[in-house]
Amino acid sequence: MNYITKKYRRFRLSLSPQQNLLYGFVSYTLAGWLLLCLPFFQKQAVSALDNLFIATSAISTTGLVTVSVFDTYNGFGQFVVMLLFQIGGIGYMTFTSFILLSRTGNLTHWHQRILNTEFAMPRDFQIRDFLRSVIIFTIGIETIGALCLYIAFTRAGVEHNFAVWSSIYHSVSAFCTAGFGLYNDSFEQFAGNTAVNTILSVLAICGSLGFIVVTDIWNRLTGKTRKITYTSRIIFTVLTVLLAGGTFMIYFFEPSVSTLESSRLTTSFFQAMTALTTVGFNTVPIGGFTLPVLLVVILLMYVGASPSGTGGGLKSTTLTALIAIMWSRIRNNNRVVFFGKKIPLERLYVATSVFILYATVIFVATLVLAFTEHFSLEQILFEITSAIGTVGLSTGITGDLSPWGKAVVIFVMFIGRLGVLTFGLAVMARRKLWKTRATQDDLAV
Amino acid sequence: MNYITKKYRRFRLSLSPQQNLLYGFVSYTLAGWLLLCLPFFQKQAVSALDNLFIATSAISTTGLVTVSVFDTYNGFGQFVVMLLFQIGGIGYMTFTSFILLSRTGNLTHWHQRILNTEFAMPRDFQIRDFLRSVIIFTIGIETIGALCLYIAFTRAGVEHNFAVWSSIYHSVSAFCTAGFGLYNDSFEQFAGNTAVNTILSVLAICGSLGFIVVTDIWNRLTGKTRKITYTSRIIFTVLTVLLAGGTFMIYFFEPSVSTLESSRLTTSFFQAMTALTTVGFNTVPIGGFTLPVLLVVILLMYVGASPSGTGGGLKSTTLTALIAIMWSRIRNNNRVVFFGKKIPLERLYVATSVFILYATVIFVATLVLAFTEHFSLEQILFEITSAIGTVGLSTGITGDLSPWGKAVVIFVMFIGRLGVLTFGLAVMARRKLWKTRATQDDLAV
Ligand SMILES: [K+]
Ligand SMILES: [K+]
Repeated sequence: MNYITKKYRRFRLSLSPQQNLLYGFVSYTLAGWLLLCLPFFQKQAVSALDNLFIATSAISTTGLVTVSVFDTYNGFGQFVVMLLFQIGGIGYMTFTSFILLSRTGNLTHWHQRILNTEFAMPRDFQIRDFLRSVIIFTIGIETIGALCLYIAFTRAGVEHNFAVWSSIYHSVSAFCTAGFGLYNDSFEQFAGNTAVNTILSVLAICGSLGFIVVTDIWNRLTGKTRKITYTSRIIFTVLTVLLAGGTFMIYFFEPSVSTLESSRLTTSFFQAMTALTTVGFNTVPIGGFTLPVLLVVILLMYVGASPSGTGGGLKSTTLTALIAIMWSRIRNNNRVVFFGKKIPLERLYVATSVFILYATVIFVATLVLAFTEHFSLEQILFEITSAIGTVGLSTGITGDLSPWGKAVVIFVMFIGRLGVLTFGLAVMARRKLWKTRATQDDLAV
Repeated sequence: MNYITKKYRRFRLSLSPQQNLLYGFVSYTLAGWLLLCLPFFQKQAVSALDNLFIATSAISTTGLVTVSVFDTYNGFGQFVVMLLFQIGGIGYMTFTSFILLSRTGNLTHWHQRILNTEFAMPRDFQIRDFLRSVIIFTIGIETIGALCLYIAFTRAGVEHNFAVWSSIYHSVSAFCTAGFGLYNDSFEQFAGNTAVNTILSVLAICGSLGFIVVTDIWNRLTGKTRKITYTSRIIFTVLTVLLAGGTFMIYFFEPSVSTLESSRLTTSFFQAMTALTTVGFNTVPIGGFTLPVLLVVILLMYVGASPSGTGGGLKSTTLTALIAIMWSRIRNNNRVVFFGKKIPLERLYVATSVFILYATVIFVATLVLAFTEHFSLEQILFEITSAIGTVGLSTGITGDLSPWGKAVVIFVMFIGRLGVLTFGLAVMARRKLWKTRATQDDLAV
């Protein structure tokens, strides 16, 4: 037994950080899949492919579902799903590193490297401080969120026992930007409920903003640092601009929202927030949106959340790097400058590659679905962008996908959670030492 | 008079090369527009906006039309249109530089700089050799093309007088990858005519391959150089791979083509060729294509032709640079290598910026058309990709566009011909000396 453990340890150590992440995600997905396949966890029979879809969707915190979680799985099954997106949300690596840390009181260099890759963090954040903040932050926010949701749900007339389970489940789901719900219409019945809208938004924004930003704010509030870091400043700015822009577009240009009277602003903000934080809840049917607004939502999902948070997408920092490249070329500048700082070349390379890889995966997946499915281009493009960004919004086609279509979406969700570049490196990289160069005021991408 | 000329000369010299190009294109477009607005050139009344559309489409060698050129303009009007796409095709700058060269026997440094920008050429090609080749090549190929087309047309039963005009017009149109035709169904009536298909394909490929490649081959054939240049090798390879791939996809996956019996391969090849060379003729209705094949055609149009040719699009060399970046990142290489050569950083920056700018323009234009028009996403995306790539293929919506839609397409065609980066630099660049660094085996992007 000891021999096998040693062999396994040596095997893991022989892998690159990216390969470790890949195998980690695959293991968790398979474990979740096997559990969900057991009739013990099910209310009604469900196909193996659908179970794999749900397991992948949960571990990748996407929230796309081919079958209703509430109708298909019993309380234990729902708990398994929650466990999967909790693990996926705070990150497989953060999680296992924490276990290791709490046991040994020390962090190996090997784990540090993985963590660096997983969250693409600038070096000047201390790993141990970071981990402590992650755990306190996660438990704290999720508990407060569950309490608030419980009050809001019972006030809205939800029965006590279900309200307890529902508030915990949705609090974790919102914070992990998983978007899994116990209601088959997501939160459409709470469209006018300001309390529920606000709580879910705060949870999702906290989760998607990322531990890095929160640590930063915490250090600023407790006086440990004098000013907010460069990366946090960028993340804040992008979030504000895109949230405001998205809300504006939906508020003024979406007929199905503009006919609402009391909750028009709340509804507009919530759908913009849900796409950008990649939480993926919705309070109005997304499938009913007009083409231009669907395109705006696709853009928001494409950009997605911040690095080192629980959300997916291209990441706001990558977006700024791309804008900086474009701007500097148009201005005929040789240096790429953004927010008054020169962005290091390495980061620009990474941002560019991620953008190209992202575009390639979306195009290829859309092309395959165009062959296998009979939906419109906007429905397919929306589904794929939602999957790769681990958002979970849908125009309503997920359940009607063909087996081939489901397999493609499973693959895309997986790549989306792992990150296109990490996936590419895990599969293709030649073995060599992974060197990261420390640069001043590094922008995480 | 001399004073005004001097003043004008000084104004032009004060501009950056990109601004010169911009003003040049604007001037030619406006001149063409004014001419086409004159009733003298018209068969029937046509709105000013449609005239502007046709003029822009011609000077940008796009070939999208809101009204039928044959039904709207008389022989003189058609000649004006041909003149515009001939000017656009061999390039406003090449043309005026040649005029200057033939008059003075010398080329100013100022013109050299503009020419360098216009065709993004590696420095080791000599400008004067290049210009001589351009003119000989253009006149030669267009004449031979017209003769061949005349024989093919008369054999197909076209009346003598019309065949003369038609063969000249279509030969120039094909070589300049303009895609303007005198038939309202493009070449659908010649779908089974192998001679016409072959002649048009050869003309379009010669034009789109670019003078740079042809000069290269010429030098190789005449023994001036021992081996083909790096850039030409890449251009050849990309063209072959994409042509074969596109033909394959249309041959096997497009129902409207696979039902054809005799001309199935010819038809498949022609539609792939027309998208990739950006000539924009078609022999089957593109609007009848299924969604996946439309997406493949969109990809071909997006990539487009080679640099320094008459075609548009992202350019095959930019594509290879992007693939090289992606590949080197996935392999965890620090150097970006393609075809055994290291690609210089400057070229990578340009390729990346062009890609991002292209994607941005396509997204924004598609979003605007989604607001103003009532067509499907694939129709709009196809139209915009066709316009920015100066291809001219359409699913048939061009004539039905709203005035706003037409204005957007005009703008996109204009940017497409000028190049997104050139346009950006013309509008935004700060005044400083334009320095190009000579690098060994430079890849033109
Ligand atoms: K999600
Ligand atoms: K064209």
